[in-house]
Amino acid sequence: MNVVILGTGNLAYHLFKAFEKSDGVTVTQVVGRSAHSTAAFSNSTEVSTSYDRIHDADVHIIAVSDNAIGDVSGHLNNNTGLVVHTSGATDMDLIHAKNRGVFYPLQTFTWDRDVDFRTVPICVEASNSSALEQLKKLASFISDDVNEIDSRKRKKLHLAAVFANNFTNHLYGIAEDVCKSEGLSFELLKPLIRETTEKALKLSPYYAQTGPAKRGDEKSMGEHLALLTEEDHKRLYNQMSESIRKVYEKEL
Amino acid sequence: MNVVILGTGNLAYHLFKAFEKSDGVTVTQVVGRSAHSTAAFSNSTEVSTSYDRIHDADVHIIAVSDNAIGDVSGHLNNNTGLVVHTSGATDMDLIHAKNRGVFYPLQTFTWDRDVDFRTVPICVEASNSSALEQLKKLASFISDDVNEIDSRKRKKLHLAAVFANNFTNHLYGIAEDVCKSEGLSFELLKPLIRETTEKALKLSPYYAQTGPAKRGDEKSMGEHLALLTEEDHKRLYNQMSESIRKVYEKEL
Repeated sequence: MNVVILGTGNLAYHLFKAFEKSDGVTVTQVVGRSAHSTAAFSNSTEVSTSYDRIHDADVHIIAVSDNAIGDVSGHLNNNTGLVVHTSGATDMDLIHAKNRGVFYPLQTFTWDRDVDFRTVPICVEASNSSALEQLKKLASFISDDVNEIDSRKRKKLHLAAVFANNFTNHLYGIAEDVCKSEGLSFELLKPLIRETTEKALKLSPYYAQTGPAKRGDEKSMGEHLALLTEEDHKRLYNQMSESIRKVYEKEL
Repeated sequence: MNVVILGTGNLAYHLFKAFEKSDGVTVTQVVGRSAHSTAAFSNSTEVSTSYDRIHDADVHIIAVSDNAIGDVSGHLNNNTGLVVHTSGATDMDLIHAKNRGVFYPLQTFTWDRDVDFRTVPICVEASNSSALEQLKKLASFISDDVNEIDSRKRKKLHLAAVFANNFTNHLYGIAEDVCKSEGLSFELLKPLIRETTEKALKLSPYYAQTGPAKRGDEKSMGEHLALLTEEDHKRLYNQMSESIRKVYEKEL
């Protein structure tokens, strides 16, 4: 299968590398806004900085920020082939092509961190059944975890991912702040953080929960609040504790 | 060194197993409240269900819930040797023994999950320098990560651990709820959760942060709020997003 990638960010880059490694897919063009952004691809495929010179391909993958998908899609009106975006939060129908779809890899991508794409769940959706089959085939060239997920479900999944990724990461940041405020190294927390994650994934978060909020231990919670110096952290502490309490209060 | 362990919970159990594996430590007695609770230890060492028959030892380790430490410590008034508790949140001076201390392993313990104790940070504190040396030696028999941490710092560390463990786990639980509300498997999120954790630990949480709140993407945040059905989750979504925004607003 021939693929054109529109966009040059983290996801575009890791998709490109995964397709390059696969046997059945050739990326025939990568299109970006500047020579700087396409440089990482130019040794391995044709690149272009003009969205008016997009090659035809079996599948055009739009891997740009959500608010640019509509624009980029508009440049593909005269192309043949399937047009898909890669966004968790965006309707499939923002794309106007007759054969359209979504190709959403559910993972966080970082330029210089390798990703084992075979373990990345890819959520696909398409405007018709032959397009859907084509996307499933494309996804299975790079991943062992291909899922047909409609726009409504995909948006919920994206929302769940915000809790599991964005918000979790922010809590790690607060934990680091609390350590630093006392001259303590964040290194001390790393084994705990790793085990917390593994435990939740093995046992399920519901059974893995521990701590003062679950126990209804008001004394410990009061002491913690007194130690927090930022109002914002106090508010989060209260809100999280209250939310945990609600889940477990029947057990107390 | 001879050690007596008071308590039979998850921590007591994993400490016991770590000491058993070590070359320099012998656990000469485990004391618990019932024959049922001491059963897991009775094949390997002497057990007792009476807190009035505690053997003398080099170190007595109180590994019970925070609110029982004072009581158990009271039973050791006639014993010789060092008395320590294992709590992150409790003052050392809750113990009345002349030679007292704290032996706090910073990790979450689960009965049937193996722990590599050599990687667990152990935070020690003691009432005098010879007791401190003794605790450091004891800790180094089972861990490569021994840290002298006073009560004030230890309490902050315990607070940071609540954010990094209890609250993070609760967010995983909410993510699972959001998936289930749409009939989606939590399995879909697992690769993301693993990578989120590894990325935060490798890059630091500050640099690993992504998402609508960091970008100030009001449209996406509004859509997410509309998808959440529980008031409690909406409140947390708003509070977390606001807290993230504050960290990054200077960059926008």
